[in-house]
Amino acid sequence: MIDFALPGELVALRDRVRAFVDREAVPLERELEGGAPDVQSIAALRAKARAEGIFAPHLPRAYGGLGLDWRSTAVVFEAAGRSLLGPLAINAAAPDEGNMHLLHEVATPAQRERYLKPLAAGEIRSCFAMTEPAPGAGSDPAMLRTRARKTAHGWVIDGEKWFITGADGAALAICMARTSEELDGHRGATMFLIDAGNPGWRVRRRIPTLDHVTPGGHCAVSFAACEVGDDAVLGEVDEGFRYAQLRLAPARLTHCMRWLGIAARAQEIAVARAAERTSFGRTLGEHQGVGFQLADTEIELHAARLMIWHTAWMLDRGERARHESSMAKTFVAEAVFRAVDRALQVCGALGVSDDLPLATFLRESRPFRIYDGPSEVHRMAIAARLFRRREARA
Amino acid sequence: MIDFALPGELVALRDRVRAFVDREAVPLERELEGGAPDVQSIAALRAKARAEGIFAPHLPRAYGGLGLDWRSTAVVFEAAGRSLLGPLAINAAAPDEGNMHLLHEVATPAQRERYLKPLAAGEIRSCFAMTEPAPGAGSDPAMLRTRARKTAHGWVIDGEKWFITGADGAALAICMARTSEELDGHRGATMFLIDAGNPGWRVRRRIPTLDHVTPGGHCAVSFAACEVGDDAVLGEVDEGFRYAQLRLAPARLTHCMRWLGIAARAQEIAVARAAERTSFGRTLGEHQGVGFQLADTEIELHAARLMIWHTAWMLDRGERARHESSMAKTFVAEAVFRAVDRALQVCGALGVSDDLPLATFLRESRPFRIYDGPSEVHRMAIAARLFRRREARA
Amino acid sequence: MIDFALPGELVALRDRVRAFVDREAVPLERELEGGAPDVQSIAALRAKARAEGIFAPHLPRAYGGLGLDWRSTAVVFEAAGRSLLGPLAINAAAPDEGNMHLLHEVATPAQRERYLKPLAAGEIRSCFAMTEPAPGAGSDPAMLRTRARKTAHGWVIDGEKWFITGADGAALAICMARTSEELDGHRGATMFLIDAGNPGWRVRRRIPTLDHVTPGGHCAVSFAACEVGDDAVLGEVDEGFRYAQLRLAPARLTHCMRWLGIAARAQEIAVARAAERTSFGRTLGEHQGVGFQLADTEIELHAARLMIWHTAWMLDRGERARHESSMAKTFVAEAVFRAVDRALQVCGALGVSDDLPLATFLRESRPFRIYDGPSEVHRMAIAARLFRRREARA
Amino acid sequence: MIDFALPGELVALRDRVRAFVDREAVPLERELEGGAPDVQSIAALRAKARAEGIFAPHLPRAYGGLGLDWRSTAVVFEAAGRSLLGPLAINAAAPDEGNMHLLHEVATPAQRERYLKPLAAGEIRSCFAMTEPAPGAGSDPAMLRTRARKTAHGWVIDGEKWFITGADGAALAICMARTSEELDGHRGATMFLIDAGNPGWRVRRRIPTLDHVTPGGHCAVSFAACEVGDDAVLGEVDEGFRYAQLRLAPARLTHCMRWLGIAARAQEIAVARAAERTSFGRTLGEHQGVGFQLADTEIELHAARLMIWHTAWMLDRGERARHESSMAKTFVAEAVFRAVDRALQVCGALGVSDDLPLATFLRESRPFRIYDGPSEVHRMAIAARLFRRREARA
Repeated sequence: MIDFALPGELVALRDRVRAFVDREAVPLERELEGGAPDVQSIAALRAKARAEGIFAPHLPRAYGGLGLDWRSTAVVFEAAGRSLLGPLAINAAAPDEGNMHLLHEVATPAQRERYLKPLAAGEIRSCFAMTEPAPGAGSDPAMLRTRARKTAHGWVIDGEKWFITGADGAALAICMARTSEELDGHRGATMFLIDAGNPGWRVRRRIPTLDHVTPGGHCAVSFAACEVGDDAVLGEVDEGFRYAQLRLAPARLTHCMRWLGIAARAQEIAVARAAERTSFGRTLGEHQGVGFQLADTEIELHAARLMIWHTAWMLDRGERARHESSMAKTFVAEAVFRAVDRALQVCGALGVSDDLPLATFLRESRPFRIYDGPSEVHRMAIAARLFRRREARA
Repeated sequence: MIDFALPGELVALRDRVRAFVDREAVPLERELEGGAPDVQSIAALRAKARAEGIFAPHLPRAYGGLGLDWRSTAVVFEAAGRSLLGPLAINAAAPDEGNMHLLHEVATPAQRERYLKPLAAGEIRSCFAMTEPAPGAGSDPAMLRTRARKTAHGWVIDGEKWFITGADGAALAICMARTSEELDGHRGATMFLIDAGNPGWRVRRRIPTLDHVTPGGHCAVSFAACEVGDDAVLGEVDEGFRYAQLRLAPARLTHCMRWLGIAARAQEIAVARAAERTSFGRTLGEHQGVGFQLADTEIELHAARLMIWHTAWMLDRGERARHESSMAKTFVAEAVFRAVDRALQVCGALGVSDDLPLATFLRESRPFRIYDGPSEVHRMAIAARLFRRREARA
Repeated sequence: MIDFALPGELVALRDRVRAFVDREAVPLERELEGGAPDVQSIAALRAKARAEGIFAPHLPRAYGGLGLDWRSTAVVFEAAGRSLLGPLAINAAAPDEGNMHLLHEVATPAQRERYLKPLAAGEIRSCFAMTEPAPGAGSDPAMLRTRARKTAHGWVIDGEKWFITGADGAALAICMARTSEELDGHRGATMFLIDAGNPGWRVRRRIPTLDHVTPGGHCAVSFAACEVGDDAVLGEVDEGFRYAQLRLAPARLTHCMRWLGIAARAQEIAVARAAERTSFGRTLGEHQGVGFQLADTEIELHAARLMIWHTAWMLDRGERARHESSMAKTFVAEAVFRAVDRALQVCGALGVSDDLPLATFLRESRPFRIYDGPSEVHRMAIAARLFRRREARA
Repeated sequence: MIDFALPGELVALRDRVRAFVDREAVPLERELEGGAPDVQSIAALRAKARAEGIFAPHLPRAYGGLGLDWRSTAVVFEAAGRSLLGPLAINAAAPDEGNMHLLHEVATPAQRERYLKPLAAGEIRSCFAMTEPAPGAGSDPAMLRTRARKTAHGWVIDGEKWFITGADGAALAICMARTSEELDGHRGATMFLIDAGNPGWRVRRRIPTLDHVTPGGHCAVSFAACEVGDDAVLGEVDEGFRYAQLRLAPARLTHCMRWLGIAARAQEIAVARAAERTSFGRTLGEHQGVGFQLADTEIELHAARLMIWHTAWMLDRGERARHESSMAKTFVAEAVFRAVDRALQVCGALGVSDDLPLATFLRESRPFRIYDGPSEVHRMAIAARLFRRREARA
């Protein structure tokens, strides 16, 4: 039956994560000055998180995690997401978190040992190399141009990738390449696991972007005569798009969980400012022009949280939840940005300044409406499903 | 733990209600031509609903209902709400439904016998006489001007009420009057149960309005030297505002449940039209300008449903859920109107015509942003709670 | 050079029209109870307008008008549009106003004598029969199914039309029919002038709709073996779509002018209410939640007015202004509805009631986002022009 | 009479400015990497602009300008504003441009010689020191805390200012200080001209902010026992707020002009991308989900331009245009941000990257909804005027 109660131990875990983030991660934010944290800072945070017993909560206990289901993950990731450093601290940041999930679902025992284990321990970073520069695969995967040719000993990969998050410094790239002439958005592409040491893989440049905080940045990457063995194939040949879906629906939902944390913190900051600053004879918050903005954020974050929980529940039941994760991603990405934008507006010039983290939140959260499928592609997919479902009923 | 599963028997009940509404209520809509159904039509519908075992599902079994909790009520009322006649058919329409809840919570056994029993059976109608014309009580209850003076034998009530829904033809008015000089929005007002036969109560006129379907309309009502006995007091003297809150939080939520049904039906109609009508070489729905509107409605109704369920869950736990019901009411009222407005737009001239029910839905749903507290008053209250909660934490 | 000054005589004319509408038309509104005025009432109003010297200001003096250019028309029509009866009073209402313009531009002297003269005098009404029920011509004119076959003596027209505004009681129908197999949205359709007495033309039913005020309603019309002579052809054979454009760009702009008047009046009513009604210790308008709504309307109506004036200026220079009239129509139709919707919200339950005209304005203005090209078709056309212009520059 | 024609020489000037900016300023943008240009780059650009005959077009010819009126300035500043470097190149950037206007209107001949002349020549920079950190003067000038005390020889100023744009490196600060106990938002404050060399004036820090391009940044500034002579008073003692209004209405409008240029360029970039990039079998622009965003921007920038022109026309007539400049500022600031935000969305990951200037435009334009009066303060003022005007008519 419909229920929104959180078990006591989950509430306790959430509160510990929240307290940890406020105590350990938030004070570091100012030192970053809007940039990515260095390896040492992250390692130090992770050591503390591990000591606190809150490290990698989404991973199975066999990999050092807490074995949380998706609903519990939703609650904990929101708490971790209060700071951009929070998810890094507990090893739950993108893209590693999604890659770990993918490896856990699809990789062979040998591949897990080699890649998942150090990833889970936070010893290495990884990237997911799918997007390509125009005219290659962006929102439309069927435009994939990177190719892998079968050789006697394995495969040779050639192609250009673009906007590969975390590539700079990653020990592992999961590369999507076409392996069949009959590529159709469903079949014909294959995922390969490629080591950083492979001379055929090169980070060409870090693309300067609006957002700065993700370690390893967003990179242009090239694969040139990149040779890998047959053991580099992740899952089955030609089934890459299927695995991408397996990765994407949860990955976009965990993104929502983390961003909800940022939005909730932005709201807290704005409420605090509105309660304290006075103007025209009353507090900012007593001006409805301000209070209504805060009320709108309150409503939308409430809706966002419920949509995330609902999709997480579906995932926990073993459903793919593509429709629901599309709806959640679209709504949350837009609601988060509005929340941050309003918070910044409420704080005025102070909000524009780096004396508050809101300007950073604005920069960092804006791309979420584009990453993991732009709102337009999700809306297209949502509408298409409405018509398919209608037909199915008829 | 977070759960969205509906028990099998609830799903079955919902589906029966839905099938009933589609079979019995929807075909009658056209005959109404946008007006209120007559007493005979309602009685006929109710007889069928009773035979179907779906009558008054929200009421305790002792009163002929199904004893549903709030969450189950949410699911069933949405199904009933698909037609404006659906809630009338199962005796779950406003304002009777809220009045029954109030009487059940506050009335004496004798009052219940006299009023709740025939109301629950669908034999009489009632109205809730609180709102007053300017400069009296509208959104701000502290402006209440109707007065009740204590006499030797009971009370004498004088005042003007306005926009009293369902007053014309109602057998019972629940009238709010000030009974103390120290009226402050919390104490000082009292509720009285007044029979239609009382010569001191008069329906002065039915106010013509944008919406037409509610039986008894919206009326201007006057109480002039209206004498009642002490047994007409509902609950405690001076505690009327507290009971009003007791009535309002659930009443605004059941409103949301019913309106969600209308919005969902509007969406179905628009999806069907968009799938069938072609323009510029493709179906309307294949034009993203149309498809995106349907996607937005899909997302918002999903969020609306989850917010309703969440508040219903709180009510089931015995919480007052004022904050959550305010958020749900604000969001749902606005989302419902947008859903209907978009559906009408998608259907074009056909949507404007009464060949579809969308124009009626537009007229009927527009006032919901005003009734049960306008969005502005809810946003004011939501913002105020943000600041009070912040202070409470400090 | 950029100039927004209105000549003194134009200001004087505008003020006279405004005073006339407030004095003569506004008081009649209540008597209509939301329906269309009868022939006698309109005739009486028109007699007064003629006496006032403000009749048919947009028509050449030869036809009894004032010979205003489009800019002056914009100013005067906004003033007339303050009441839904205003444009009828000065014989500037749709669809007659657009039909008069079309006849003036395209008709032969004989056709003008027969049709334009009595139309200009306000003696007869007319309709424009273009839209068809699905799967015929709606937003996409290339789907036109009504056909005219050439005979020895003239033409025979067969087809179904739908949503023909003002058809019931019209003395003249301007009917669009395909006259060529090669119909392509540009050529192949022809306009015919058909008398009400023609037995081949029949008003099948008045379609009940959300809006009620237009005399003659919106009708389903059939042409069955409707015989007309060669002199019934308006302009050239196969050039109907070109004339439709000639009619539509100005017609949608004059619609904007009139609706702007309604929106401005809605705003006045809301400002008055917000200034007088108090709630929670201050006037409604002092609550920013109300004041900001009024400010938004103020801003948007200002923008709307300037866009109308700009397009009118282009028409006065002899330009077709298709891009600009599309932009104006889209913006104004949406801004007008928001203005009315906000005004109604600000006035609360009173706004919902027919004690104010806002509920009527809401019903009447909603279809404007659909009539004269729905917003979606205009946005599609605006976007397409952006790309064509870019190519033209390259 | 209403007219939107631009004289031939104005069109020619606009086109020259536009060509200059595209040729000289746009290529420099990439070198900035999102930061402020250095003094040498600006000087080089200005030399070229002077050679081109387009330098300081808004200034009187006596000061080396072109003596344009406000309407012509609007046209030219939009063209200059296509690049963030454009206004700097022609010496029309904030805050110097507004300060020059203020000095021209209020300063004594000696003050003009000393400050206006080198400012007009682009030899020095200036800042306007009005805003204070909480609890001082932000949106509400009556909260001003900086004080100037009269001494025998002049004045001594003490106070903290904050968010003073361009202060770092400015040769002149125009400082607002209270000079009367009866400060009321209208009278009691005075403007002082303070040289950079004055030891009582100190730039405490450059505040890191979301926007980076303005030379001199946004600074925290302190005045401590800052002694100035009587000749440092700008205009009359106690009349500072009046001069602030004199500066602000045009200053916020010139801001609008420049930002409109940025938005128009963002739109061009998005249109180009949408025309070239394909996805799901058609160009991005053929997807209505993209095309409608471009159409909305097209409509809103059109409205924005007309509102700017209208206010400029009022200023040219000698009106203060406070209402109209408030409306224009509110609408333009929000429309510009939406335009940039949509353009970035349309360009996807490329839009997020610094390979396009859109991410920079987003950062730079966001604060405009706060600077020069946040939207909330303008909406408050607009609403207040609606009620005052209503009263004045009564």
